[in-house]
Amino acid sequence: MSGSDRYHKDQLSAFIASVFVASGMPQEHAETIADLMAEADLNGSEGHGIFRLPGYVRRIREGGLNLTPNIQVETEKSGMALVNGDNAQGHLVMKFCAEKAIEKAKESGVAWVGSHHSNHAGPASLYAKMPLEYDMIGLYVAVGNANHLPPWGGTNMLLSTNPIAAAVPGLEEAAIVLDMATTVAAYGKVKTAAQRGEKMPEGWMIDKQGKPLTDPNRAEDGFLLPIGGPKGYGLSLLFGLLAGALNGAACGEDVVDFNADFKTVTNTGQFIVAIDLAAFGDVNGFKQRVDSVIRAIKASPTLPGFGEVLLPGESSRKKRDDYNVNGIPLAAALVAALNSLAAEVGVNPL
Amino acid sequence: MSGSDRYHKDQLSAFIASVFVASGMPQEHAETIADLMAEADLNGSEGHGIFRLPGYVRRIREGGLNLTPNIQVETEKSGMALVNGDNAQGHLVMKFCAEKAIEKAKESGVAWVGSHHSNHAGPASLYAKMPLEYDMIGLYVAVGNANHLPPWGGTNMLLSTNPIAAAVPGLEEAAIVLDMATTVAAYGKVKTAAQRGEKMPEGWMIDKQGKPLTDPNRAEDGFLLPIGGPKGYGLSLLFGLLAGALNGAACGEDVVDFNADFKTVTNTGQFIVAIDLAAFGDVNGFKQRVDSVIRAIKASPTLPGFGEVLLPGESSRKKRDDYNVNGIPLAAALVAALNSLAAEVGVNPL
Repeated sequence: MSGSDRYHKDQLSAFIASVFVASGMPQEHAETIADLMAEADLNGSEGHGIFRLPGYVRRIREGGLNLTPNIQVETEKSGMALVNGDNAQGHLVMKFCAEKAIEKAKESGVAWVGSHHSNHAGPASLYAKMPLEYDMIGLYVAVGNANHLPPWGGTNMLLSTNPIAAAVPGLEEAAIVLDMATTVAAYGKVKTAAQRGEKMPEGWMIDKQGKPLTDPNRAEDGFLLPIGGPKGYGLSLLFGLLAGALNGAACGEDVVDFNADFKTVTNTGQFIVAIDLAAFGDVNGFKQRVDSVIRAIKASPTLPGFGEVLLPGESSRKKRDDYNVNGIPLAAALVAALNSLAAEVGVNPL
Repeated sequence: MSGSDRYHKDQLSAFIASVFVASGMPQEHAETIADLMAEADLNGSEGHGIFRLPGYVRRIREGGLNLTPNIQVETEKSGMALVNGDNAQGHLVMKFCAEKAIEKAKESGVAWVGSHHSNHAGPASLYAKMPLEYDMIGLYVAVGNANHLPPWGGTNMLLSTNPIAAAVPGLEEAAIVLDMATTVAAYGKVKTAAQRGEKMPEGWMIDKQGKPLTDPNRAEDGFLLPIGGPKGYGLSLLFGLLAGALNGAACGEDVVDFNADFKTVTNTGQFIVAIDLAAFGDVNGFKQRVDSVIRAIKASPTLPGFGEVLLPGESSRKKRDDYNVNGIPLAAALVAALNSLAAEVGVNPL
């Protein structure tokens, strides 16, 4: 990457925590969130890591975030819990929910933990991966924090990119980690194309006449397209209902655009499912079956133009291996913005 | 529909049951399966109803199906159960699993019930809808019964159309019922295009060189395309692991092509999740939120070329309303095939 320097995860984490603390956040919360944000960058989720820090700080300054939240289980049964995030930063709420789901799944086999009054929590895969070390499968679904998607055939933007993530462990092979929006492109990709002065490929967006929109500077004139047309619309709606409406969280018209409004409580909803492999049978037997599927996929001949077949999460893992050794690349413009923020709040630059 | 007559659901159901009984199936099982198959046709799932009868009967004749199964819970905890279908017809196994999930969710709030040694069960939505009458959301995922999908960028057909269905109740509005494959087109649509002598649109299939394949008669030379490219591949893989590998059912290379092999035990895997609305809060409050989302979607202005915005399940419901009054249309060729089957097994024609 040209115009970028590389930073070790610990550098990013320490910097993020210092900015949060200087912005009034308790040290312990700041460190927890900073670690997860730097972890996102380490995994190559560059649109969901330190890049988000200025926006998060702005939300704190404008009063949109609760810095002293009481995150708690509001109601629960053996197979589920509903967590009230008390308008905390989403990372705190989702870590709480993942831990609760893991704890409950040890007893119940499968546990579903939903949230309301949460906030943006970074990349979905962070939380889907948390059950892995307990020999569990993790699933995570969120209501996205801005509506960029109309229902199929419509023009009112009532839905978001509502992502799903899942992590499934192998025995000798690395876990399969899926992390995907229900739209062809995430909105962050549109912004990146605009920053780089590049056109978007047809299929990412359409304008209000239904025509392909390829100029990312005209993104406001159009909508993201769902994967598989009406199917992606259906998935986005379903995920919105399960992660939003079911939990009493925002869904549809209620969704607050967190890139435009830093004051209003977002009432973000998410859910996590932890599935204990031991409840279904022999854990290693399952992991061996996953290994077999992975190996068959990797052994597949490729289509012209493809060097290899990738598993979900494989390119992220390759970045992580690189970044762990060589550091995480941050664009010069991002570093400048972060250091400007550091100066504002009175902490050391990155 | 030209070249078709219409039949009431009870006619189809009675006919199907008579054919199954004449083929050696116990009366009670025959009636249960026949009712679900006719229900599929009533919902407009014409590729998953009576159309499948000749294939099911062939599997019975060739010894691929267990006519005296002992469907039972193999292991369970409060939030889950794993059901051994004992190679029964999938409809029987999935009805058992849905009832078990509902029963468990009353206690646990959310219950996940997986199956192995099941078989093809017709349209996914049949089972996702079963929890609705108990004020529960239903989810259903299955490993498809033939691999038509390679991993993204590969050429070995290791994955199936692995569908997902979900049913979410409204209060005054009809339930949202999603039922979708993870491929752009289901394989049945390819077969229909071939029967009608029509070309397929680009985007449904590619050939082994990665070029668009639009001649449905050349379907054997190519693959279905997943929704959203790598995303649909990821979803198909995830659903295969959750519905197949987790349950000890076939997934990947192990999947038996049930259209080509009528003898081998398919070891089909599926799972159902029942989510009890009462566990999360006020049931009517949730349903009102769903109503609001539905009404906002229906009120959306439309893109050029769209007469209205549809909810998932809405076109199926319109067909059902029509078919309930006017009967279910069956193509003349299908009726001829069914009546030929009836003559073979010695029951009255349709």
